[in-house]
Amino acid sequence: MKGRIQENDDVLLYLDKRRSYLVKVEKGKKLHTHKGFINIEDLLGKEYGARIQSNKGAEFIAFRPTIRDYIFKISRKTQIIYPKDIALIIFFSGIGPGSRVVEGGTGAGALAAAIASYVKPYGRVYSYEVREEFLEIAAKNFKRMGVADYIELKKGDLTEKIEEKCVDAVILDLATPWLVVPHAYEALKGSGVFVSFSPTIDQVVKTKEALIESGFAGIETFESLFRRMQVEKGRTRPETLMTGHTGYITIARKAMI
Amino acid sequence: MKGRIQENDDVLLYLDKRRSYLVKVEKGKKLHTHKGFINIEDLLGKEYGARIQSNKGAEFIAFRPTIRDYIFKISRKTQIIYPKDIALIIFFSGIGPGSRVVEGGTGAGALAAAIASYVKPYGRVYSYEVREEFLEIAAKNFKRMGVADYIELKKGDLTEKIEEKCVDAVILDLATPWLVVPHAYEALKGSGVFVSFSPTIDQVVKTKEALIESGFAGIETFESLFRRMQVEKGRTRPETLMTGHTGYITIARKAMI
Amino acid sequence: MKGRIQENDDVLLYLDKRRSYLVKVEKGKKLHTHKGFINIEDLLGKEYGARIQSNKGAEFIAFRPTIRDYIFKISRKTQIIYPKDIALIIFFSGIGPGSRVVEGGTGAGALAAAIASYVKPYGRVYSYEVREEFLEIAAKNFKRMGVADYIELKKGDLTEKIEEKCVDAVILDLATPWLVVPHAYEALKGSGVFVSFSPTIDQVVKTKEALIESGFAGIETFESLFRRMQVEKGRTRPETLMTGHTGYITIARKAMI
Amino acid sequence: MKGRIQENDDVLLYLDKRRSYLVKVEKGKKLHTHKGFINIEDLLGKEYGARIQSNKGAEFIAFRPTIRDYIFKISRKTQIIYPKDIALIIFFSGIGPGSRVVEGGTGAGALAAAIASYVKPYGRVYSYEVREEFLEIAAKNFKRMGVADYIELKKGDLTEKIEEKCVDAVILDLATPWLVVPHAYEALKGSGVFVSFSPTIDQVVKTKEALIESGFAGIETFESLFRRMQVEKGRTRPETLMTGHTGYITIARKAMI
Repeated sequence: MKGRIQENDDVLLYLDKRRSYLVKVEKGKKLHTHKGFINIEDLLGKEYGARIQSNKGAEFIAFRPTIRDYIFKISRKTQIIYPKDIALIIFFSGIGPGSRVVEGGTGAGALAAAIASYVKPYGRVYSYEVREEFLEIAAKNFKRMGVADYIELKKGDLTEKIEEKCVDAVILDLATPWLVVPHAYEALKGSGVFVSFSPTIDQVVKTKEALIESGFAGIETFESLFRRMQVEKGRTRPETLMTGHTGYITIARKAMI
Repeated sequence: MKGRIQENDDVLLYLDKRRSYLVKVEKGKKLHTHKGFINIEDLLGKEYGARIQSNKGAEFIAFRPTIRDYIFKISRKTQIIYPKDIALIIFFSGIGPGSRVVEGGTGAGALAAAIASYVKPYGRVYSYEVREEFLEIAAKNFKRMGVADYIELKKGDLTEKIEEKCVDAVILDLATPWLVVPHAYEALKGSGVFVSFSPTIDQVVKTKEALIESGFAGIETFESLFRRMQVEKGRTRPETLMTGHTGYITIARKAMI
Repeated sequence: MKGRIQENDDVLLYLDKRRSYLVKVEKGKKLHTHKGFINIEDLLGKEYGARIQSNKGAEFIAFRPTIRDYIFKISRKTQIIYPKDIALIIFFSGIGPGSRVVEGGTGAGALAAAIASYVKPYGRVYSYEVREEFLEIAAKNFKRMGVADYIELKKGDLTEKIEEKCVDAVILDLATPWLVVPHAYEALKGSGVFVSFSPTIDQVVKTKEALIESGFAGIETFESLFRRMQVEKGRTRPETLMTGHTGYITIARKAMI
Repeated sequence: MKGRIQENDDVLLYLDKRRSYLVKVEKGKKLHTHKGFINIEDLLGKEYGARIQSNKGAEFIAFRPTIRDYIFKISRKTQIIYPKDIALIIFFSGIGPGSRVVEGGTGAGALAAAIASYVKPYGRVYSYEVREEFLEIAAKNFKRMGVADYIELKKGDLTEKIEEKCVDAVILDLATPWLVVPHAYEALKGSGVFVSFSPTIDQVVKTKEALIESGFAGIETFESLFRRMQVEKGRTRPETLMTGHTGYITIARKAMI
């Protein structure tokens, strides 16, 4: 990773914990905010982390965007899986650099991109999406996030078939994961990991039944709650607002029959 | 990754969700359990995920151990950070293949090993530990988990100095993270990420104050709760037992002064 | 309690779980809603629980308001303590019919009214409020909720003194509970219960220190999380939105020195 | 309530937050603990809250037991509903002094006793239990807790019939609450409250369906999480251990058909 901001880099202009702006660095560009405008060109050659002022004197910090920043920006346009869940899905799936992973439905691409950022440069994500309208959105997001080379975006329905074999993991965020289970079993190598994210209990129950029937073992389901703290001497407390539910994560491993 | 079990591989012999055994595959070895013994040698050449019976007829499954499995085994001997927290720390730190990360205190090595499994093969973890007795334990664990080549284990006190420069992240699990903050600032590249895990509110407050003073920005603190579900048609419910608290995670990014 | 709706009764007109209306039954009155209007007079003589239609055909149910319903309505105008916390405060304080309780700051009166509804008819709540503007609001709320006879509303500052002696409990929802602790000790009978509700950790720490110093024992602090479920066959799940934090409850009992 | 300890009073001898002893005050009685023995007789005439030393110098405090203390002691022998849930059930049910409440299954009597302590002296709890072995246990507990006069303990099966009419609330802690729903509807007065506590999602779904079918409205389901804090300057944090699940509470009100 380079240390200085160059043309065509994406930069996260951070104002405060509620407001930040993801911007591509281009000559002549201005970013307009309610705190005044910023000459984006002025960032060229500065070190990441540099502070820059708007014409009204508000200070912004030019951070290098992380995958989580991109995902946060995508999430303002489409319903996507939360970073707290992506983190658990990736770590519990046991994947890492070099892994081959089937994923779907792609949607806006947040989960596929996050997985790709961990399996690159030699691993691959095979991301399935059946809805035409999302294929273009996802392709664009992958390119912007710099992970397009590690993802094979496929138009296809995982409930009908998975074309890959001997993959390390199958990771699902779709409405009927239980219909994918038999295909996931065929696609996975022995001991390979199945992960599914579902909002409702009913989806979880059906998926678990399908997993047992197909020969999976080590099946676990859990949920996580993420709670922000407001930290300030004399006034420290958890924040009032919290997301009470996103979904349940079910994981299992392929046992040979 | 090879698909068949070979000599000197580690295998996770899974009996049920409460009992599994991490065993190195060696000729002539027997694993004794309360459900009878298993001839470990019989696993040679089998596919991962294979089922094997003890002499008393109990069925075990030979899974390929994931980093989480190793961590779970380590955690039975030493107090270590939980997988749910490791997952968030890694994802929110923005690291990936190729990242250079300072980490400490090493302890039994769980966190360093998990980080290494994501930055390998070209990245590096510089893991600091001041307590002599843990250096040996950690080194042994790194070797067993196959991540020793990606970790530089250092005897040293992070509250005194960090020798590396331009690292992507500094990740702490130690008693006085606020004393490390100024050194972390020096060690990080611009926009680099600081992450600290602390059990108490008081540690969090002191760390946040130090972060502000040193020039960090984008400071956030949160905690996560992990709740297992018991999934069974007609009897689905969250599990009765739950860990109510592990620690708070504080993250921040280096802004230039 | 009478079973039929009479003039001047309060009625909760329930439309759905998001919309209900608290109305006094009076001749000639109309309730206007976005689903049309209702002739309130038509409720006279009907049994509680009766269904009534608006002129546009929307069905409302005329429930008898509970203390919780009143509190919910008050809460839309003022910041008040949540029912989930009131429930714990009352049960853990050990009070019941006949108890004598000091409470403050009164605010809009939600907590005092709830306590009164459990100590009535022979018990008393001594509710202190130092802010003039709330005294009138609270008095009006007590009257409407039918608990005015059991509450002595007092203009006074609990951090300066408590006039009562030998009370069963002192229950606080104010900014500096630690300043009330010595007065609470004097006011309570032996083994009497102190309860304090505070949003921040810092308040809790100071209060606990004051409690120890004054001679209280059996000190406990806890928080509760309240999570709604969306229950529907095939779609059951926790609700997305949740309040992540209201406050900590600290309880203690007076030990003799 | 009297202020001094008399013969035959129950006293809670409190040592620390993990250890306390519920003892009846009788002449000549000794309480043996691992911290030495206490001459119980010495408590006679002392004020509640008095401190007393064991022969080994350990200090105990003689608190007046609350309903919660009794419940905690009962809970060490039988599986019972938690105080955190009892608190919500009582407050959300809208009952208070004078209410008439049907409750069951009685079990060891914790829930019935708690309800009785709020509806006394003029209200009544009709507590149903079909299992012979619990009737005696519950009767003994009611007597000890001083609430026997306010509870009519009945051998009977709520899934078959409820004998009372025009009750204010029906409160259930039993395996098949949906089978009680039609009888609860008959027993309740208009706008009366139905409350059910159930550990599993499946029970909740069936109960909700039965409630809708019978004509109930205002149906809500929620769960609560109770988390203790360890409060100590410089070391404040939530406690590590926590109960992750007890059960779901479903409430509804009778609407006229």
